[in-house]
Amino acid sequence: MKHYIGIDLGGTNIAAGLVTETGEMHYQCSTPTGANRATDEILADMAAVASLCRRSAGLAPEDICSIGIGVPGAVNDALGKVYFTANLDWEDLPLSRLMRERTGIETHLANDADCAALGEVIAGGAAGYDSAVMVTIGTGIGGGFIADRKIFRGWSGVGTEPGHMPLIYGGELCGCGCRGCFETYASATALIRQTRNAMRAHPDSLLWEVCPELGLVNAKTPFDAALRGDEVSIRLLDQYEEYLAAGIGGIINLSRPHCVIIGGGVSNQGETLLAPLREKLKKYCYASKYITPPPVIKAQLGNDAGIIGAALQAL
Amino acid sequence: MKHYIGIDLGGTNIAAGLVTETGEMHYQCSTPTGANRATDEILADMAAVASLCRRSAGLAPEDICSIGIGVPGAVNDALGKVYFTANLDWEDLPLSRLMRERTGIETHLANDADCAALGEVIAGGAAGYDSAVMVTIGTGIGGGFIADRKIFRGWSGVGTEPGHMPLIYGGELCGCGCRGCFETYASATALIRQTRNAMRAHPDSLLWEVCPELGLVNAKTPFDAALRGDEVSIRLLDQYEEYLAAGIGGIINLSRPHCVIIGGGVSNQGETLLAPLREKLKKYCYASKYITPPPVIKAQLGNDAGIIGAALQAL
Repeated sequence: MKHYIGIDLGGTNIAAGLVTETGEMHYQCSTPTGANRATDEILADMAAVASLCRRSAGLAPEDICSIGIGVPGAVNDALGKVYFTANLDWEDLPLSRLMRERTGIETHLANDADCAALGEVIAGGAAGYDSAVMVTIGTGIGGGFIADRKIFRGWSGVGTEPGHMPLIYGGELCGCGCRGCFETYASATALIRQTRNAMRAHPDSLLWEVCPELGLVNAKTPFDAALRGDEVSIRLLDQYEEYLAAGIGGIINLSRPHCVIIGGGVSNQGETLLAPLREKLKKYCYASKYITPPPVIKAQLGNDAGIIGAALQAL
Repeated sequence: MKHYIGIDLGGTNIAAGLVTETGEMHYQCSTPTGANRATDEILADMAAVASLCRRSAGLAPEDICSIGIGVPGAVNDALGKVYFTANLDWEDLPLSRLMRERTGIETHLANDADCAALGEVIAGGAAGYDSAVMVTIGTGIGGGFIADRKIFRGWSGVGTEPGHMPLIYGGELCGCGCRGCFETYASATALIRQTRNAMRAHPDSLLWEVCPELGLVNAKTPFDAALRGDEVSIRLLDQYEEYLAAGIGGIINLSRPHCVIIGGGVSNQGETLLAPLREKLKKYCYASKYITPPPVIKAQLGNDAGIIGAALQAL
């Protein structure tokens, strides 16, 4: 049995696990990230959770094939470095070398959304598919391609960002500096913004009964109101799903994966979200009259996917 | 020396060539497509030009490694079939089998833009690069990915259509049935439409001196007027280049190729087109502060690229 350690480095928590080559997680632990701390302190905690994972099975460093880290930012595994992260103040950090020095174990890096995609293909909702696109609907849109059951790191090894293809050129300002990226219309953040706008425009909408304060709106709010028959929410969600389908359709037209996995908090709506999405994808997938769009699957592993995929990225 | 035959099947002409494994074209011929004719007649002419290519070097069918066809439409090489074409009335045609039956030679299929991309990587402007995206600016936007010096046919073998990712969701109607695809803003057709609109809005623009009739406007018109200092054309081209950069930036963010090749009629503007495009790409490529955008190169082989790439698709 081969063992790998996966670390999902988040803005809030550092979550780690001991994972076998088949994607089973035998031990799991986590500690707060403390994102404002010095890099050295965060690295010490990452090494500590890795050590806990290793010792949980009584293993020596040489018994671990590799450590894999899922980073919330842009990385280059071949160079072993983090270009930058969204939540930590890291720039051009040689993270692979620093972790190897602290643990004695070879370390690999990938974007956290890429790791989640790999986890779902190896042990989750997309098990059995050779290639997949995963779209994680959260604060932003994370995305990852899996090809031949490996993370696709971009042809030049730089890492892909499907959330940052254009959807409405010149539209809403994106965190990346551009306007109108896919994630500015289809993330949970975008859905919350769209819901608040609808509430302002429709003071009589049931949305106000579901959530009496604009500040408390979350991505579940419009789904709950739609369930109670609120026409404003039904129209709003229909438009939201169009944005989602147009973006995913564009990704499919460029990459033609065997399946599409939808993850992140919004995916908890299950078929309420996915059934209309599948229907709308027929419009946005090129030549869908001849070429059946790929199946759209709900992610199954939740946060575990990121740890499992991080661990097995070097498999 | 290994020999391959490449056929570039266009709406106007069937162009073919005898190509060596290093990408040299030793013989070339062409015949009108007659796109309205029966499929059998077109196939007979395709077999005839293939035969001319073969006999030009005194070769027997068994001396040819394979025939490769570049098709202006959606194909699946693994299934040997054409899903449909833009200019011919073909649907679900088993083209590989039909050509093999007529020529006795194994036949492969790819989209024509994919073939052009491969030709440029093997023998043209992108020689030496392992991966590339080619964007062909013509009636539409053709596009192709090359990975490890092979055509990327989509993870599931269906073929990619970079011209049909969204640029302005809900915008101009596209031939594919969607609204606002990349090609509806950045093709030569789009540039002509944008130029005509500018002429209607600015009766005093120099554009009217360069081209006194709206019906005669072509993609060169605004470049010629801009060269004479026409402010309307300079602004129009700046906006056009923004569209082009936003679309190509999205493709780069999804695929991270080693280089970008620009082909098609509009690419004849050379550095006039490419220098501002490179500058604008810094804005649209994710994290360009850390990750240098790939070089942008002008296609060099013209129509030969499609024949050479078609021929060598099975290399």
